[in-house]
Amino acid sequence: MPSANPADDTAADVDIVALLERGRTMSTPVLRAAVDRLAPPMDTVAAYHFGWIDAEGRPSDGDGGKAVRPALALLSAEAAGASPETGIPGAVAVELVHNFSLLHDDLMDGDEQRRHRDTVWKVHGPAQAILVGDALFALANEVLLELGTVDAGRATRRLTTATRKLIDGQAQDISYEHRERVTVEECLEMEGNKTGALLACAVSIGAVLGGADDRTADTLEAYGYHLGLAFQAVDDLLGIWGDPVATGKQTWSDLRQRKKSLPVVAALAAGGPASQRLGELLAADAKSNDFDSFSEEEFATRAALIEEAGGREWTSQEARRQHAIAVDALNGVEMPAHVRAQLVALADFVVVRKR
Amino acid sequence: MPSANPADDTAADVDIVALLERGRTMSTPVLRAAVDRLAPPMDTVAAYHFGWIDAEGRPSDGDGGKAVRPALALLSAEAAGASPETGIPGAVAVELVHNFSLLHDDLMDGDEQRRHRDTVWKVHGPAQAILVGDALFALANEVLLELGTVDAGRATRRLTTATRKLIDGQAQDISYEHRERVTVEECLEMEGNKTGALLACAVSIGAVLGGADDRTADTLEAYGYHLGLAFQAVDDLLGIWGDPVATGKQTWSDLRQRKKSLPVVAALAAGGPASQRLGELLAADAKSNDFDSFSEEEFATRAALIEEAGGREWTSQEARRQHAIAVDALNGVEMPAHVRAQLVALADFVVVRKR
Repeated sequence: MPSANPADDTAADVDIVALLERGRTMSTPVLRAAVDRLAPPMDTVAAYHFGWIDAEGRPSDGDGGKAVRPALALLSAEAAGASPETGIPGAVAVELVHNFSLLHDDLMDGDEQRRHRDTVWKVHGPAQAILVGDALFALANEVLLELGTVDAGRATRRLTTATRKLIDGQAQDISYEHRERVTVEECLEMEGNKTGALLACAVSIGAVLGGADDRTADTLEAYGYHLGLAFQAVDDLLGIWGDPVATGKQTWSDLRQRKKSLPVVAALAAGGPASQRLGELLAADAKSNDFDSFSEEEFATRAALIEEAGGREWTSQEARRQHAIAVDALNGVEMPAHVRAQLVALADFVVVRKR
Repeated sequence: MPSANPADDTAADVDIVALLERGRTMSTPVLRAAVDRLAPPMDTVAAYHFGWIDAEGRPSDGDGGKAVRPALALLSAEAAGASPETGIPGAVAVELVHNFSLLHDDLMDGDEQRRHRDTVWKVHGPAQAILVGDALFALANEVLLELGTVDAGRATRRLTTATRKLIDGQAQDISYEHRERVTVEECLEMEGNKTGALLACAVSIGAVLGGADDRTADTLEAYGYHLGLAFQAVDDLLGIWGDPVATGKQTWSDLRQRKKSLPVVAALAAGGPASQRLGELLAADAKSNDFDSFSEEEFATRAALIEEAGGREWTSQEARRQHAIAVDALNGVEMPAHVRAQLVALADFVVVRKR
């Protein structure tokens, strides 16, 4: 098992690939054991979702995602002076909640692809997507509460709070789809709920399991929350200008889904000729019957207008701004220097990633 | 507020209407306050589901169900020597989980009516049914965990276990729909998961919040589990032979839904000419294209065959058998005589109810 090197005292020295790999390697066996507890056919459906088997049930070495959350949960335990192992149930619980939300969101949003594969509702039907999502959510609480400690109860409470925010964010996301205008503030609030809250929980849960007090946990959550906002700003950039080969999504993915992401709302709020022209086009698109047959060029035109109106640059700056707040929050907690360096390195990674 | 009379030392003396009303009266304000925490539009959708408002948002005095679970949760606290108030967060959490499962099950099963009204997915769409179900589940944990005590953590763990069983039961229910034959044992296991587990939790959660040890809680759960099986056996009888005016369901409701409920599986397992004829008819029904246009008479024929094969009588006996096991389990716990009398009276009520 690759282990973080205590000599990595500055972010530049941290091997980010090894750090993410450590989180994945240490948490995946426990995650798989938890999922194996599900009654058939839910165990199989969940295993398909996690990429451990293909649609025919054959073992598969699927893309399990970047595994930022498990890495954070283990570092979280170390930040409180506990062993990384202390954070494992937290890492597993957060991954279970994250994947519960993916299963349900994909169904609600009608998304047919995730991580280069058909989504669960597409392969196994809507009922299984609902049911297995529910089961993963319940399992998340189970994995924590069976520890039977007071700290496990505190950790579960934080996870529950984060889950409620996740659900609030999805409710906002759905309601914004039907609205013509969404403000930058509303978009940031929604992204804070959908992405910030669970990353915040990932960064506090290991510490809480390691006995950290609430103030320490809250400060770590501030880092995680702003890291989440930086993460989502970058995601929004990749959703329009990302390389399809790297992201596994279509070109102009978020534009095809009419997503009111940060670059779009910032461009619409900016004013000026490009902003106005973009507003007219998107308003017409909302009523258009042949939006689905739009050419690459038509999306390229919209992307260019977003950029011209300043939406791309504003979102890049926002990612850097949230990154700075996140890193600054770390000053509020005493922790080993190499753990701090790794948390900073993870924040750096989040804003420069290409997928 | 009607309160249970400590002089009611035998089940025959218990005013069951007052007992159910007490559970409802004491828990509903806390339940409403919890639901009010949901962000719009989820608060409105949930309020519609609970029958507090109608589809247009006007206040409504809907049928909130029998409220057996809240009554049990308050008695549960009293069984452990605590005040009924101690059980309130447990009553609310159990109701939230119960209603989370109703919201999701109605969508998965395509049920358009519940308690004489259109279901949430029918009125507000599938996405809201998923989302609000998720929110109620999260809220259930929140209501317990914010108590911040060790016992609240224990109670949440029991609720999580019950929820996992609920989900297992729904998974079994769905898989049985696609199977030609289901054994009586499989049907009982499914009903134990779908109905027994949460009733069991309702009867232990108040005691746990009142500081009862695990052995006491487990014994109370045994009562609740068998009460649940008795409850479900009666439900299965009402699902075929119930009075539509009382149940709020169509005539032959479960037969119309091709439900493999206890009377059906017992009749199919019984052997003999009526059992065989029933098996042939149901096998043909499963392949029939005009099942939906079947007349009252065609369902009446099937119901008569189930009765002739002994499915109705077997299920009635099963209800009485489970009732007896439930009541017997109460002997394993020391509790005030009037609380025991009320638990017995609730068990009696469950098997004689008409709705």
